[in-house]
Amino acid sequence: MSVTAARGFVASGVHSGIRRSGPDLAVVRSTARAVGAAVWTTNRVLAAPVVVSKRHLDAAEPQAVVINAGVANAATGETGIADAELTAAETASALGMRPEEVVVLSTGVIGVPLPMDRVLAGVREASAALAPDGGEGAATAILTTDRWPKQAAVEGDGFVVGGMAKGAGMIHPRLATMLAVVTTDYPLAPGEPIDVLRPAVDASFNRISVDGDCSTNDAVVLLANSASGIARTAERDAQFAAALGDVCAALAREIVSDGEGATVLLEIAVSGAASTEEADAVARRIATSPLVKTAAFGRDPNWGRVLAAAGSAPWNGGFARVETDRLSVSFDGAPVFVRGKPTGATPVLGGSAVSIDLDLGLGDGSASYLASDLTVDYVRLNAEYTT
Amino acid sequence: MSVTAARGFVASGVHSGIRRSGPDLAVVRSTARAVGAAVWTTNRVLAAPVVVSKRHLDAAEPQAVVINAGVANAATGETGIADAELTAAETASALGMRPEEVVVLSTGVIGVPLPMDRVLAGVREASAALAPDGGEGAATAILTTDRWPKQAAVEGDGFVVGGMAKGAGMIHPRLATMLAVVTTDYPLAPGEPIDVLRPAVDASFNRISVDGDCSTNDAVVLLANSASGIARTAERDAQFAAALGDVCAALAREIVSDGEGATVLLEIAVSGAASTEEADAVARRIATSPLVKTAAFGRDPNWGRVLAAAGSAPWNGGFARVETDRLSVSFDGAPVFVRGKPTGATPVLGGSAVSIDLDLGLGDGSASYLASDLTVDYVRLNAEYTT
Repeated sequence: MSVTAARGFVASGVHSGIRRSGPDLAVVRSTARAVGAAVWTTNRVLAAPVVVSKRHLDAAEPQAVVINAGVANAATGETGIADAELTAAETASALGMRPEEVVVLSTGVIGVPLPMDRVLAGVREASAALAPDGGEGAATAILTTDRWPKQAAVEGDGFVVGGMAKGAGMIHPRLATMLAVVTTDYPLAPGEPIDVLRPAVDASFNRISVDGDCSTNDAVVLLANSASGIARTAERDAQFAAALGDVCAALAREIVSDGEGATVLLEIAVSGAASTEEADAVARRIATSPLVKTAAFGRDPNWGRVLAAAGSAPWNGGFARVETDRLSVSFDGAPVFVRGKPTGATPVLGGSAVSIDLDLGLGDGSASYLASDLTVDYVRLNAEYTT
Repeated sequence: MSVTAARGFVASGVHSGIRRSGPDLAVVRSTARAVGAAVWTTNRVLAAPVVVSKRHLDAAEPQAVVINAGVANAATGETGIADAELTAAETASALGMRPEEVVVLSTGVIGVPLPMDRVLAGVREASAALAPDGGEGAATAILTTDRWPKQAAVEGDGFVVGGMAKGAGMIHPRLATMLAVVTTDYPLAPGEPIDVLRPAVDASFNRISVDGDCSTNDAVVLLANSASGIARTAERDAQFAAALGDVCAALAREIVSDGEGATVLLEIAVSGAASTEEADAVARRIATSPLVKTAAFGRDPNWGRVLAAAGSAPWNGGFARVETDRLSVSFDGAPVFVRGKPTGATPVLGGSAVSIDLDLGLGDGSASYLASDLTVDYVRLNAEYTT
């Protein structure tokens, strides 16, 4: 159940010394010829590894991914670009490939240069340690404030999709980025990976919120190496797309469950919106409302805050269409507000997940979102002083 | 320095019993014939008093404002509308005016009907208690989780602008709305109040953020009664507009300083944006970023989070234009990041206010925003369980 679950993938995680202790550098490699793609952060401020890796993906099909934790290599200017290039070059040299075939990802402190001697030694050590059972080590080496490694794998008819991720939620003084690497032995042709990856990311990683902040380093990378040796059919293609979606969804769910300071997972489902875009805007607004998220921390079925958030969801230069007297809200399946009227019910919210269902009663648009709660620990973690 | 600072205004605050203790109902009235206007919440979910007061303002010039705290009269259906109408009618009857001349505002618990017997008795008591020195009592009666009454007044050449407000930041189980009433004896003609009020609100109340949530009840009301008896000149008009802006700015600043759990006031100034709209989007994004706000709580000059927020400011269907290597950031006047490079400075942030100045280096667009920090107390206050 890891990034090496599919045939023809090896991985490793080592302690390079970027961080004082623990593994902090991972390599994932396809041993068979792969094709691939990535979906990147939309932040206008891009970290150096994002700039470099975008160039590499434009120039060649990716065969390996090298990831360091501890230093984000963001806001580091030309030095940062050169360091990311050098990291890719050293990885390529160790693995016998071209630098453009290496994707570089970083997570950690912003505005600090990478300690390149350690990084390059780590790259050599990790490249030498690559193994089919190295997935867990790689998944551990990319963590920052995460409490546990995040891995997933789904087996299809003759193929496997596997992956690893690290959590969203930025913690001072690091920008703890959301990173994911997904691998498969399913046969994809050049150009196809982005077409399958984008919808899978839109339905998973783009529908989660820990704190609504978008990092300079976020990335989801897909490598597909055809090592399954199977023939493609329309049925198998559909099965593969579903498996890819499932792996992304499982990793996204893990990320939210392990959000900084999180004590509960909020499953927000909006239906009956005037359009899909408006359902999305409303779900996102609820998922990022500090008031909804603090209420969740207090296990409070506070539908008033859900209404207030729903009524102020930015859409199309204004707010998404909402009419109070058509609106219904349930917490964990218990209706608390039905077509504009409170039911008087106050469901007890006890589990590790809480569902909030909102029916706008206007049309067919629906969307869902996962969110963590906003807790005292989140504030404490993120208010720590720079030292 | 209150809502009765201008000639021809009286006010009062009484304990009606909507809340267990303390004053909870206020009336402000112009004793000379007034004209007026209001700026309302943009939330799609409107509280009953907002619906009713909008109708009243369409039908007549406002002569009085009645405000209750404790119950927001939001999500209360047709009963809520009838209750708001009845509150206005009782106020009008006590004051010898038409119901349409009364603006009704509410703040407090959502989804709960107003205890109308207490409200109506309170309206009669408050109407009988109206006095020129009643401003402080009125300002106290409209508070919810605020720690102190918010009042301001500015004297011009022969006229006065005064006002009162209550804080933003919603606290469970109440929706603690942002409300403000501004009064002046400056002579305005019918139709003019909205034209002067809107820019004043845009530059003040619309540029503050406690938690980024927008209530169902937010309102700013202006009454102008000409009681100064002065003649208008172009110079006086300009002075009046400035005074109105100053009163709104002072009240807005008080609201942020008293944000729920707030320990520091963040003064965010963005310059050099490609457009004013983009400056506004970037300032707003920084002001609402949980990561920037928790860093402020920790007195951490965390420019990395400021960059990450600036790079992801929603604008025009995408993000506002930002280029890392043109960007400069200062905390309390000390440059920490200059044209794409960290300076290495780590200013000590000790006061009750912290300024964050961001120069995008792209154009002439500028905008400012006030925000409170995100604190452990904010989460605690808002996570309290429904009981």
